[in-house]
Formats: sequence, C-alpha cells, structure tokens
Amino acid sequence: MKESIFLDIKAKLEKRDIEELKPILEELYPADITELIDELSMEEVKAIIPAIPLKKLAYALTEFDYDVKHTILNLVKPEDLRVILDNMYADDIADFLGTLSIGKTKELLKLMRKEDAEQIHNLLGYDEDSAGGIMTTEYIAIKEGKTVGEALDIVREIAREAEMIYYIYVVNQTKQLMGVLSMRELITATPDKKIKDLIQKKVIHVRLDLDQEEVARIISKYDLLAVPVVNHQMQLLGIITVDDIIDVIEEEATEDIYKMAATSEVDFESGNNSILKAAMKRSPWLIVLLFASMLSGSVIDVFSGLLNSVVALALFMPTLAGTGGNAGTQSLAIVVRGLATGDIESKDLFMHLFNEVKVGGLVALICGSMIALVAFLWQGNYILGVVVGLAMFCNILTATFVGTTTPFILDYFGIDPAVAAGPFITTVIDASGLFIYFTLARLFLNHLT
Amino acid sequence: MKESIFLDIKAKLEKRDIEELKPILEELYPADITELIDELSMEEVKAIIPAIPLKKLAYALTEFDYDVKHTILNLVKPEDLRVILDNMYADDIADFLGTLSIGKTKELLKLMRKEDAEQIHNLLGYDEDSAGGIMTTEYIAIKEGKTVGEALDIVREIAREAEMIYYIYVVNQTKQLMGVLSMRELITATPDKKIKDLIQKKVIHVRLDLDQEEVARIISKYDLLAVPVVNHQMQLLGIITVDDIIDVIEEEATEDIYKMAATSEVDFESGNNSILKAAMKRSPWLIVLLFASMLSGSVIDVFSGLLNSVVALALFMPTLAGTGGNAGTQSLAIVVRGLATGDIESKDLFMHLFNEVKVGGLVALICGSMIALVAFLWQGNYILGVVVGLAMFCNILTATFVGTTTPFILDYFGIDPAVAAGPFITTVIDASGLFIYFTLARLFLNHLT
Repeated sequence: MKESIFLDIKAKLEKRDIEELKPILEELYPADITELIDELSMEEVKAIIPAIPLKKLAYALTEFDYDVKHTILNLVKPEDLRVILDNMYADDIADFLGTLSIGKTKELLKLMRKEDAEQIHNLLGYDEDSAGGIMTTEYIAIKEGKTVGEALDIVREIAREAEMIYYIYVVNQTKQLMGVLSMRELITATPDKKIKDLIQKKVIHVRLDLDQEEVARIISKYDLLAVPVVNHQMQLLGIITVDDIIDVIEEEATEDIYKMAATSEVDFESGNNSILKAAMKRSPWLIVLLFASMLSGSVIDVFSGLLNSVVALALFMPTLAGTGGNAGTQSLAIVVRGLATGDIESKDLFMHLFNEVKVGGLVALICGSMIALVAFLWQGNYILGVVVGLAMFCNILTATFVGTTTPFILDYFGIDPAVAAGPFITTVIDASGLFIYFTLARLFLNHLT
Repeated sequence: MKESIFLDIKAKLEKRDIEELKPILEELYPADITELIDELSMEEVKAIIPAIPLKKLAYALTEFDYDVKHTILNLVKPEDLRVILDNMYADDIADFLGTLSIGKTKELLKLMRKEDAEQIHNLLGYDEDSAGGIMTTEYIAIKEGKTVGEALDIVREIAREAEMIYYIYVVNQTKQLMGVLSMRELITATPDKKIKDLIQKKVIHVRLDLDQEEVARIISKYDLLAVPVVNHQMQLLGIITVDDIIDVIEEEATEDIYKMAATSEVDFESGNNSILKAAMKRSPWLIVLLFASMLSGSVIDVFSGLLNSVVALALFMPTLAGTGGNAGTQSLAIVVRGLATGDIESKDLFMHLFNEVKVGGLVALICGSMIALVAFLWQGNYILGVVVGLAMFCNILTATFVGTTTPFILDYFGIDPAVAAGPFITTVIDASGLFIYFTLARLFLNHLT
C-alpha cells in the first residue's frame, strides 16, 4: 500500500468520512487492510470497521491481533458476521475460532449452516500443529467414473467455494483417495476421456496427525501447490495449501531462532500486563542459565589459590570462554539447521562429527597459536603463552565435539535440538574450558610464578 | 521414498541390472531421485545415470551437488543433453548453468534452440539474489483483445511448456502488463466474454532488481502462486513461482541462523580440500571475536590489583558475563527476526525499545536479587552480595539496550542485522559487564576486604 493512500485514509478517518472511505477500501487487497489496521489506534479501528467491505474483512480477519478481532466481533451485526463467516475458508474459520473463548465460538458456530458448523467443529478438534490442524475442507473431489467434460462441469460449479481448484482429487465410493489430476491435465484432455485413465495413482499425501513441519518439508520437496490429508483408511479429509505452508516455514524458523536465543515469542500489544508476561517468559531460561554458569564460578573457586598466585591467568578467562562458546555455537548452528531442513539426518552423526572435528582441529590450531603469541607478547612469559594456547586448542576441540553431538542426541530423544543452542552450549563450554585452563596452568605452575 | 524401494534399487545396482532399474526409477518422483543420488557413492551414481529417464533427470538436475552434475555432463550424450535441457524450465537451466564454468555453459547453450539460448543468456545476466535471477520466462501472456474462448485455446496450447498456467497475464502491444486473470476465473466465465472485461487491473508485481527476500515477502503477504516481474517500462519479463519462493524463505532463514552463530554454509562433499575451506570460512569470525574479547582481558588487567585483593570477585565473572550476554541475545533475536519477517519496522525502534527496557528492567531485578542472595549465602559477605546484584542489574539493562538498538542501527545503514548477533553482542556485553562490576566493587572496596 502506498504512503499517499494511507495518508488519504487517515485524513478521511479524522473527519469520520465513512462513505468516502468505502471506495478506497474496496480497492485494497485484504493483506493491505491487515497492514492498515495494524497502524491505526483502537479508536480509529472502531471508526473504520463499518467502511470495510465484508468480503475483505472476511479474508483479513484471521490476521488481526486479538484485540482487533474482539472489537470487530462486538461491532459487527450478527447478519453481517454470518456473511463474513460464509466468505472465509474452513481452515481460516477454525484458526479464528481457535483464538476465541468457548462461549464466543459456540455463538459463532450457531450462525453457520449446520453442516459447515460441524466441519469446523471437527477441524477444531485436531492438534493445531498437525496436518489436521492446518488443513481446509474446501477441496475438489470427484468420483472415479466421470469423464473429463463432467469433471470440468463440477469444477466450474464449485470453483468459487474451493480454496484450491488446481488439483482435482479422485475418490471412490468410500471416499478413499484413488488419484489426483492437475487442472493442467484436465483442460488439455479431450472432454470424453475417462478420468480414471488420466489420473496419477501414486498420490503424495499426508496423515492427519503428521507434524506441520513434516508437511512443509513434503510440499517443499515435491514443489506442490497443495497436499491431500488422509486418515488411516486412506479417506480424503482435507487439503493443505502452499500459502499456509509458507506461514508454517516462517513460524518454525522464528521458533528455532528464538529457541537458539533461549527466548520465546513476545507480543507487546496489550499494555503493562504483557510486560510482566514477557518478563515471565524470558526469566526462567535466564535463571536456569544463571545457576548453570555458577558451575564456572565453582571451577574458579576450586582453583582460587592458583588464581591468587598468578593473577595474569584471569586476563585470558573471557577470551578462552568466549572463543570456545563461539566455536561450539558454529558447529551447533549447522547441525540444528541441517536437522530442521532435512539436509542432515540422524544417521549422519559420525560422518558429520568426523568432518567437524577435522575442521575444529584446524580452527583450534589457528586460534591456539594466535592467543599463545598474544599472551607471550603481552605478559612476556612464554610458559603462559603455552598454557593459554594449549587451553584454547583443547577448548575449541571440546566445543566442536559438544556442539556437534548435543543436537543429534536431543533429536534422537525427540527433543527439538534448537533448545540446546547458543546459551546452553556456551554455559557448558565455559565451565569445561576454565577447568582445562586451570588444570594446564597447575601443571606448569612452577614456570609461571 | 520407502526404505524397501531403496534397498531394492541398491541390490539391482550391485548386479548392474540397468534394464531392471528403469521401470523402478520411472515410478519415482524427481525429488526422490535427488534423494537417492545423495545416498549413492560416485561409482553407483555413474552406474545408475543411464537408467534414469531423461525427463526425471531434467527435473532433478538443479538439485544435485556439483560433483554429480559434473559426472552427469560427462556421461550423457549430447543428443540426450539436448532432451534434458528441453525438459527443464528456463529458471532451472539458468541456475544449473550458473554453477558451471563459462566454457561448459557456452557449450550447453549451443545445444539449445537459438531463442531459448538467448533467453537463458539474459537470465544469467541478472544478480542471482534478485527477482530477475530467480524468475522464469515460461509464463502465459495473452493480448487484451482476446475472448475467454480464445484465451483458453492459447492456454491449452502452451500449457505443457509453461511453468505456471494458473495465472494468465494480459499484455498490450508493447508487452506492458495490463492485468491478470486466474484460471479459476477463466474456466468459470462464458467463452464469448472479452478478457479485458474480466481482468484484475491492479496487478501485484515486482521489479527486476528487487531483492529475493522482498519478493518472498510479497508472495507470502498476498498468498500468491506466482508474481510477475517487470522492468521500469512495466514490460512483463518473467514470473516467480511459489515453489522457488519457499526455497528462498528457507535459504534466508538458514543464512540468518548461521550469521547469528557467526558462521556460514559449509559443504563437506569434496574431501580434504573442503575441510580447509570450511576452517577458512569459520576462523576469521572467531579470530575477530577472539581479539574483541581481549577487551574484557584488558578490563581485568586494569582492575587486577582489585582482583588480587578480593579473589572472590572472580567467582561471579562468568555468571555476570554469561547472563548479560544471554539477556542481550534474547532482545536481539526478537528484533533480528522481526525485521526479517517484517513484523518489526525501522520506525518501531523507540516504541520497541521502551517496551524492551521495561521487560529488561523487570528481568534485571529478578536476576539481580537472585545472584545477590547466592553471593551472600556462598561467601557470607552481604556487601559482596550487593555489589554482584547491582552489577547484574546494570549489566542486564545495558545488554537489553545494546541488544535492541544494535540491529536497528545496522538495518538503518543497510547492513543485515543478523551479523550483529549472538557472539558479537555477547563479546561487547562481556567487557562492559566486567567494567561495571569492578567499578562497583572498587566503590565498596573497604567493605569487601
């Protein structure tokens, strides 16, 4: 949406020019209406709602923040609400209702036709991260016996209702998925040809309970526009379209990035209460890590006599701990991301570890020599240089090992490897690095003092 | 692909049963062939290539590793190569040639029809991260004057060639984009209706030089299956399809995660040489960070007298530095990801910072009190508790501030905010945290000893 249109809308809103707003809003895409609403104050939202065409409101509704949704529900008349629900796809209605209270959900389901309400009710029953939770029921399915001409007539009839009309699924009497036909094949075939002679019989499909991340991997791998969802009897229950999969991929990447930073999604929309909530979401991880890092404190405590006699040892503590943590994070990020995208599989552990240790060894050699030289030049004590350099070498090698194996191990036990990331690895490596450092220092103590 | 099919293929390969392999491979999807090739040794790849149907090979070719591509080029006869290229979409050919040497590229271009070769040559000229670099030229464009019936005939004719037939673009005499029509609208309209009365005139489009990440954002925002690419004269030059956008989104998320871990993509495929390359890719960041962390060493050096008289201060150094780094990383991850997905915009800096500081303040209070108590109970010195607690409070607050503002500042200067992430922020906060800690300790020195 252009800035000029936005300013025009703002100006007309200021004057509460609802009638003049209507034609402007009519021209906007639903996604632009979402964007617009995001920029307005709640007062302005209340004023603009009556000017938004119901159909656009229907498309935009799922994208709004909770507060806006609530405001709209309170402002819009029941008969308009019915029109809005009629213009939404089943998966979007389910997502929308999923964010509302049970009372409100029941109220809205009553506005819908009985069979539609039943469908939505079913969709609401599936885990929201599963194939069932993101599928829609507006697909095109035809019986095996039809001809191309008959199939095209059916498609024409339900094209307006269906979310995806470019794949036509073929089912038998008991609704079992028998094949698929693309619109491309349908329109290029002669009208009297039998559908069952054209269909692709090996249909890529997903089970109702498959995790949405796996669904995304399948759509992405086979470059599909949609994938059918079936139950254990291979009955077709819905489809998942590529636009929803894009949202899943973005969501999962965000989740991984947040997990690697030991935090989770924060929504600042609703005032001071959310500040407290955000703090409560972040603190637990920080506190766990805080206590974990006391392990490093304990290592220092054990070696405090040594530190007291060679204070210079303290100078290299941050660099040793930091570089080890960084090297470990590098190894870890590659495995975590590789496991998430499927580029690395569990069975690759040893091959990958072998390669990583070689790379890590080389990196350790480079960084070790470098810090040894710095320590010698700075403190004029070549034994200190040897101790710091050796400690760096061992530390990076340990870090590479821990950073590579930990995500594989977590993945093996069904835990998302991203949770292990950055901060956790760093804390563990901190402690082990200091232990290595002080142990080496004690070995060479006579030469250090 | 099922494990049983894979084992069957392996067994037949063992016996070099090429003829028996053909029907099995005929049944596989191209994506499964890519997966299969990934699991085979180079010897096996050489043996299996003649058994793969050329059309499947065409679809899978862009996905292979460099070595495999090279092997195939050397094994396949020129006339077969021509068939393969004929069955690839222009964007895939361009991607494929982009990975080869200039000599090999020219050789392959000579195998193609002159006009196709010219198109590919043009595509190769665009920056590979721009809209031009990822677009394909196999779209459907029709003239404004046509009727629905005529349009359908055209679509039927070129349906086999085009990569995406579900959006029909309408252009004028000078190839300027005038509108778009979906296949859904085309098949439901009466055949004698004029196309120009049906088209959507405001077409969402992208310019040739738009960054691929922005293209992804537009396709994702408007839930499109493809977006047209135009030049400054609004002439239609190509389209970008949603399957390529999924790859872009995954690639960009991977890049961000790697940058946040201060590393970059590693490809272990080609032996020891790649180990050296991988080490060379990772070491620079580690070394920069290594020297940056010497800043913390210098802070310790400045306060070494103090540390010498109160060795207990050293016990809390790792916890202070660690918790500060973690809190900063949390704030940073939220901004980096928000800026990448568009959920946070540059102009949100002050609003976001204000909220973050409130959250950070609360978190600082919680963590500060906790570590103060631990320090008091462990060392039995309540002044040490006060010093450590205060230092923790100030450190987390600084970390929140730095973690929030840095990505905004980088973004303002056109630098990808992800590079600032994790390790860099942590290193800066390490040094500032130690400085705060020792300064506070010096203030309370008389009570500490």
